Amino acid sequence: MILATLGPEGSYSEKAAKQWNKSGEMHYCDDIQDTVEALLHNEVDYSVVPVENSLEGSITLTLDLLVEHHLTIVGEVVVQISHCLLAKGKHSDIKIIMSHPQALSQCRKFIKKNFRNVQLRPVLSTSLAAKLASGSTDTAAIASEESAQKYGLDILETNIQDISENFTRFIVIGKDTPHATGNDKTSIIVYLQKNRPGALHEILEEFANKNIDLTKIESRPTKKFLGDYLFHIDIKGHIEERRIKETLEMIKDKVGMLKILGSYPAAL
Amino acid sequence: MILATLGPEGSYSEKAAKQWNKSGEMHYCDDIQDTVEALLHNEVDYSVVPVENSLEGSITLTLDLLVEHHLTIVGEVVVQISHCLLAKGKHSDIKIIMSHPQALSQCRKFIKKNFRNVQLRPVLSTSLAAKLASGSTDTAAIASEESAQKYGLDILETNIQDISENFTRFIVIGKDTPHATGNDKTSIIVYLQKNRPGALHEILEEFANKNIDLTKIESRPTKKFLGDYLFHIDIKGHIEERRIKETLEMIKDKVGMLKILGSYPAAL
Repeated sequence: MILATLGPEGSYSEKAAKQWNKSGEMHYCDDIQDTVEALLHNEVDYSVVPVENSLEGSITLTLDLLVEHHLTIVGEVVVQISHCLLAKGKHSDIKIIMSHPQALSQCRKFIKKNFRNVQLRPVLSTSLAAKLASGSTDTAAIASEESAQKYGLDILETNIQDISENFTRFIVIGKDTPHATGNDKTSIIVYLQKNRPGALHEILEEFANKNIDLTKIESRPTKKFLGDYLFHIDIKGHIEERRIKETLEMIKDKVGMLKILGSYPAAL
Repeated sequence: MILATLGPEGSYSEKAAKQWNKSGEMHYCDDIQDTVEALLHNEVDYSVVPVENSLEGSITLTLDLLVEHHLTIVGEVVVQISHCLLAKGKHSDIKIIMSHPQALSQCRKFIKKNFRNVQLRPVLSTSLAAKLASGSTDTAAIASEESAQKYGLDILETNIQDISENFTRFIVIGKDTPHATGNDKTSIIVYLQKNRPGALHEILEEFANKNIDLTKIESRPTKKFLGDYLFHIDIKGHIEERRIKETLEMIKDKVGMLKILGSYPAAL
């Protein structure tokens, strides 16, 4: 089994992929888009991409790719994120800090307090930042402990994110929806017919009436005009369950577009 | 009147600030956080910050600052964004493209098609990118036409964003809520008491019952744990209107937290 994931080696995405399947062979990609395309081009069996972080919120590129392409979510993985400051040199040598933009955001307060005049350089992944930082003494990386070992960097600080509880949820994208396990989630995208008062309320009412739990609702722009949204919704339950199936059928009649992304075992 | 806005000169934020108040004196800030802090420290009368783009969605840092600080939204401005590729050198000289991360995202397809092997360098604003690009021939900037003039760059391409209709909504933050004009919006942040089925539905029901139009709903992480959200909601109407005031009072009793950010004239 081949899993596409954000590279290079040592990334949180790789950690997520291994958490989902220990024995899978890794196929490292440059960015989220390439990771998804590896699956679309049948180069891999599954793609593992981040979708949501507990500090920074949704990874909007992933949400947008779920809208653009025909993709099936077959699983989810939650990974604890513990950012470290990694460098070849000393604290006082650091002139540049590299990391993924999300990681830089997650450590905003730490950076502002300790490195007010340092240049921040966003790169495509935390592990790439570590790889690049290994080439000079004036550059530090914000990345995982694993990356320090992988690229021979010293760990100058640990757990530097703004809030110590930091988790990222990854989704596993594949081809076939797994059967119900009794603890599942279903992900959908809804476009309301008209932006009229109460349209969203009517949809949520269907879930409330059937006592279906919403675990997430997130709006994304349709990219057509300002104030026009799609809603990404996660609910508890599996499409094989009758009440889920019936509710989704009811909703389908009320909305402009309903895209079912898949049902899969819940991570927690 | 002094307006804080994202600098340097030539930024879209400055355009928004001028659209809101032609005669205001500009106070240029390095980033969104500094722009908001300028108001908190009484260095300016108003701060103008981006909150939402029609392609990329919410500017999450702005939403998070609205949660963290005591701020009053007193106005909104919508600016049409038309990104250009600006450089001193020729198309074939370009090795680095600089811009604000949001602008780089908005031009993702253009870059992937035309500059697959170019290094992308995110910086704090589009106008800063233009300023920096003016120093070398191998660096291009994605920024406004105004920035080209300001920093003496050639316009190599115009309207390079993925979709030609590209608008950014800015909010004006100040001290006092303006009176109702008859075409107003009210912005609130809601934290639901429990993440139970139907909690969000109950809130939206209050709006639907009173025929109050939701113009926006967006979830943001509480940063406490994964799956725990705040909701940023914009509705049509002014807090001075009885039905708005009464509905918000009713909602206040049902939720864990209700923060009213302000009522202000709608831009469109």
